[in-house]
Order: sequence, then C-alpha cells, then structure tokens
Amino acid sequence: MALHPRMDAVLHGDEAVLAPLVARHPILNNRCTVRHADRVVTMHDKPAQVMRHGAGTSMWGAIDSVKDGEATVAVSCGNTGALMAVSMLRLRKLPGVNRPAIACMWPSRNPGGFNLMLDVGADVKAEADDLLQYATMGASYARNGMGLARPRIGILNVGTEEHKGRAELKEAHERMPRVAEIGSFDYVGFVEGGDLPSNRVDVIVTDGFTGNVALKTGEGTAKLISDFMRDAFQVGFWSKVTAVLAMSSLKRLQKRMDPRRVNGGVFLGLNGTVVKSHGAADATGVAAAIGLAYQLAQVRFIERLAARVASAERAGQDDAPKTDAATGSNPTE
Amino acid sequence: MALHPRMDAVLHGDEAVLAPLVARHPILNNRCTVRHADRVVTMHDKPAQVMRHGAGTSMWGAIDSVKDGEATVAVSCGNTGALMAVSMLRLRKLPGVNRPAIACMWPSRNPGGFNLMLDVGADVKAEADDLLQYATMGASYARNGMGLARPRIGILNVGTEEHKGRAELKEAHERMPRVAEIGSFDYVGFVEGGDLPSNRVDVIVTDGFTGNVALKTGEGTAKLISDFMRDAFQVGFWSKVTAVLAMSSLKRLQKRMDPRRVNGGVFLGLNGTVVKSHGAADATGVAAAIGLAYQLAQVRFIERLAARVASAERAGQDDAPKTDAATGSNPTE
Repeated sequence: MALHPRMDAVLHGDEAVLAPLVARHPILNNRCTVRHADRVVTMHDKPAQVMRHGAGTSMWGAIDSVKDGEATVAVSCGNTGALMAVSMLRLRKLPGVNRPAIACMWPSRNPGGFNLMLDVGADVKAEADDLLQYATMGASYARNGMGLARPRIGILNVGTEEHKGRAELKEAHERMPRVAEIGSFDYVGFVEGGDLPSNRVDVIVTDGFTGNVALKTGEGTAKLISDFMRDAFQVGFWSKVTAVLAMSSLKRLQKRMDPRRVNGGVFLGLNGTVVKSHGAADATGVAAAIGLAYQLAQVRFIERLAARVASAERAGQDDAPKTDAATGSNPTE
Repeated sequence: MALHPRMDAVLHGDEAVLAPLVARHPILNNRCTVRHADRVVTMHDKPAQVMRHGAGTSMWGAIDSVKDGEATVAVSCGNTGALMAVSMLRLRKLPGVNRPAIACMWPSRNPGGFNLMLDVGADVKAEADDLLQYATMGASYARNGMGLARPRIGILNVGTEEHKGRAELKEAHERMPRVAEIGSFDYVGFVEGGDLPSNRVDVIVTDGFTGNVALKTGEGTAKLISDFMRDAFQVGFWSKVTAVLAMSSLKRLQKRMDPRRVNGGVFLGLNGTVVKSHGAADATGVAAAIGLAYQLAQVRFIERLAARVASAERAGQDDAPKTDAATGSNPTE
C-alpha cells in the first residue's frame, strides 16, 4: 500500500486475526478498516451452496462492499467458482451482458510482455454473441488495464483458415469486423494455440472451457520445463557449478515468466470489478493483484466498460439477425 | 531403415526425384519400391477438394497402398486435414467407430517420458460415445505402441470434481468405469490442463478442438520459454560465457523436450494405420515416425485395435441407454 498512497482498504475476515496484523504496520493505520466475518468460504465449498448459504462469509462481505459502493474493486484469493457465483448474485450482470468472463494475462512476445485471454473459466461454453461481447470487454480491459490504445483481438480456433472450427466461431468471425469498428479495436482473425504467446494479438477470445484448458496447459508446460531444467542442472558436479554461474541468466528468465507479476484474473461483465488472485499467491502475487485493482479503480474502469458494452449493444440492435451469418459476408456495412 | 532390417518401403512421389535419392544409399537397394505419382497434395489444398480430385497424388497412393494390403502402415508429412479425409475415404472407419481420432505424444513426468492425448484435431467435437471410444483406442495404442500393460486413462476437463464441465464429459465420466473394465485399463477420472505432463495419467481423452488447442498451446509455451532462455543467456559477456558452460545441461533439457523423439500423430479408428509426421520434421523426426510405424506393424496393431473396439461395442449393446446417465451411478454392474 506504500506504493498506492491514495488507496484505502476494507479487510473482511476474522478480526482477531486481522487487527493485530494491521497494527504491526504503522503505514496501514487509518487506511484499513477491518470488517469482521465469522465464516469463510473454503476451497471445497460448491458454488451453489455458497450462493444459498454464503451470507456472513468474508467473501460475501467483500463483494457486498463493492455492491454498496464502499469499495471500488474487490480482491480475493478464494475459491474461483464460489467467487464468481457470489459476484453474479450480488453485483448482477451488466445490462446487455449474457455471460460474464474471467480475463487472465499470459506471457508473450508483445512489447508489454503479456497478452490477455478470456474467458478462462467463468462458463464452460460461449455462443457467438458471447464471444463478441468478450471481444468488446477484453478490448476495454486492454485499453484501461494494459494501456493499449488500439488492442488487437483474435478468436482462438484450431486453424487460421476461415472454414475451420465450430459454427459459433465462424459466426463470431463473420460478425466481428462490425463489433471491432464500434469497439475501436483491430480484429486479427482466428489465432491458434501456438499464437497465444505471440506478438500477433493482444486479446484472445475463447469459451471458458477451452480458455481454462489452455491456461492450465501453458502453466503446466512451463512448470514441467522448469522442473526438467532443474534436473538438467543437477547431473554431476560440473553442471551444478554451471547452475550457480548461470543463476543471473536463469533469474532473468524466471522474472520474465513469473506468473506473480501478473497475478489476478479479472471478472468482466458485472456491475463492479472483482480481481481474483491465485489461491497459492505469496505476498508478491497478492501485491500485484492489489496493484491491478488500484489501477482499474483509478481509471474508473467499470464505467468505461459499461459504456462500451452499451454502445456495442445499441449497434447490435441494428445488426443483421444472428442466424443470418451465412449471408453476412460484409458485416461492416 | 538400417535399424529395421525386416522393413520394406513403397515410396510414393516423383520418380525422377526419388529414384536417384534411393540409389545413393546401397542399404535401400531391393528394399524400396518407388511408385511414381504425378501430383502432390499441398499444404493449402482443402480436404474436401482433395477428396474429390486427389486420385493420382502421392498421398492418395500411399493410403491406397495400405488399403490394398501392399503396405501395413502409411507415413506422411503432408497436409493433416487432407490426409485424414483421404484416409477416411479410402480406408473407411473401423466397424463401430463413429469419429476417428488423431493421437499424439506429450512430454511428461511418466516413467516413459510421454503421455498420449487424443483427439488432437481429427474432428472439432466429440460426444460421450466418441470419448469412450477414444479411451478404448488410446488404451490399445498405449499398450501396443508405448508398452504399457495397463494404461491409466483420464478425461480432460476444467476441474477434477464430478460436477464440473460439459454434459458429454459428465456422461462419459459416468459410463467410463464399465468401458475400462472391458478395455483392461484404469480410469483415473477427470484431469486438468495442468495434469497433461503429470504422472497421474498415461492417456488423455478429449475432443479434437480442445486437444488441438492444448497441444499447440503446450508447443507454443515451450517455444516461448526456449526463446526467452536464449535471450536470457545473451545479456552481457558473462552470461554468454555461462551459456557455453551450461551447454551440456541445456542439451540434456532439450533432448528431454525434443518433439522429434516422438514425432508422429497416429490416426486411430480406421481400417489401417496412418502415421502423420510433423510437416516441418527433419531426418530425425521422419525416422522417429517411420520407427513408430514399424513398431505398430510388428505388433499387428490394427487387428488388436479392431478386436478391442468390437468387444467394447458388443458390451455397449448391453449397456444402460446413454440418456440414462443420471441414474447410472454404478455403471460397472
């Protein structure tokens, strides 16, 4: 919080635990309000149960802080499914949004070092309309959260040719140029799994099932390589010596891939901003999530996002009917 | 071919190019038959066009070699979509198979160093029946192509809890224990993207859309890290020196991740075996694909696979109706 002098925080949880922690840091005096909650949502609680019986938990309280206007953004390291369920229940969807999405950063060859992908797991499917909304919301986030004036958006598919993929992807592909015009972003067409870390695209749009598998596959692959690398530097005396010498290079690599630097999935499409930090995040990771929340609050992100969604929706009312995709070969007219 | 003394080959392509290449290697004398083809399928040809007009191409000829019993396995580095289309047209699906699949190896923490994933792109979707067949086919491949007596099979999902994921995944999950019993494999339940390189599972079952995205995401992530690593060892004089010293460790790592060692997607579910080598494969990669083809021919893989599919299908006729998944809580009875 030392980095964000204009930020205050409301901490939801067990006061007996939180109050002494806050008291230890003079810088937090007068800037943290502890709001006691008797109960917590655990990682094993099912979202449906939390929706029914979650009132009084710290998670519920944190979301209600945003709902009541006491806080601008909620940050949580908790159960993702429950957090999304409580967020939808309490904050409600933005007018015009059918499926909210979780957006997540991805290391890439971009100048900024990261791409954005959504949805990475709010829902297991997405129709063409949802994919178009993800593009609008992702572009708005890239502009306000990543500082990209004119983000490049791609739809994740199994090939870059127009005839490939599922029906909803082809429909979204045909209708996207018009949405891109309204949303002031560039549509780069279909992208493949191999393009995720590329400099071809800033925002990757996909359904939450595919996005979640891709995200976890990428993380798992990075972890595998990191483990194999450690093994490779442990074979014999000489390679151990080399590992010590190579430390600064390996640290440079690690920093570039460090997921903590961009810790925080953002829930998009609700009447309020929620940042989901990784459950296993350490202090660096949580600080990154809080920093992201602060930035989004500063630029009044949710108002900008709502305006973008509304203007896309108004334009959509004049749009060709969505079942007419086959004839929509020139959707920008 | 020096490694496979009992193997002969029929080479399909331009005789004017192939014959001199064969003549240069005495070991190939009397073991290679060149079958001239005037035309080739290019990487840009659409599968549907190749199905209509592809007769006379080298790809068509290679598949017909298997169809006519002249060859046991076909190996191609060509256009994957066209190869699958021609294979389906000429070889036809195995009795009982609805959707053929492409199976591909994946570096992992397994004792063997690799997992198998299918489908990685033959089709963009898969119903519960298809997923169950992929499990049967993948188990047979793991047994005959990877030497695993009792393969562990998992279904790729966005979480490991039973209530998560799409309807067809839940249905396949409920019916899988019975299929596992017939197919003599172990069903480990749902696995996530992060489990792909794990030692929890030997065969990962998924639809071709998700599998293709996961495969390319994994490859893209590995490539990104490898590029970043090269960058990290290029900053300043000292790290360049270290890179030279670290060479043997880095080579050890590279070998473990080398996709050429397991080059070759295998088409499963047809009346014949087709091995698809990566289009950009070098001599090492093509040799690996040919070695795989040889091994599958040696164990009479296609006959074993057909027998497994047939017995699963016979058992399936006594199975609970597939719409009755909700009540099938004990599908092994």
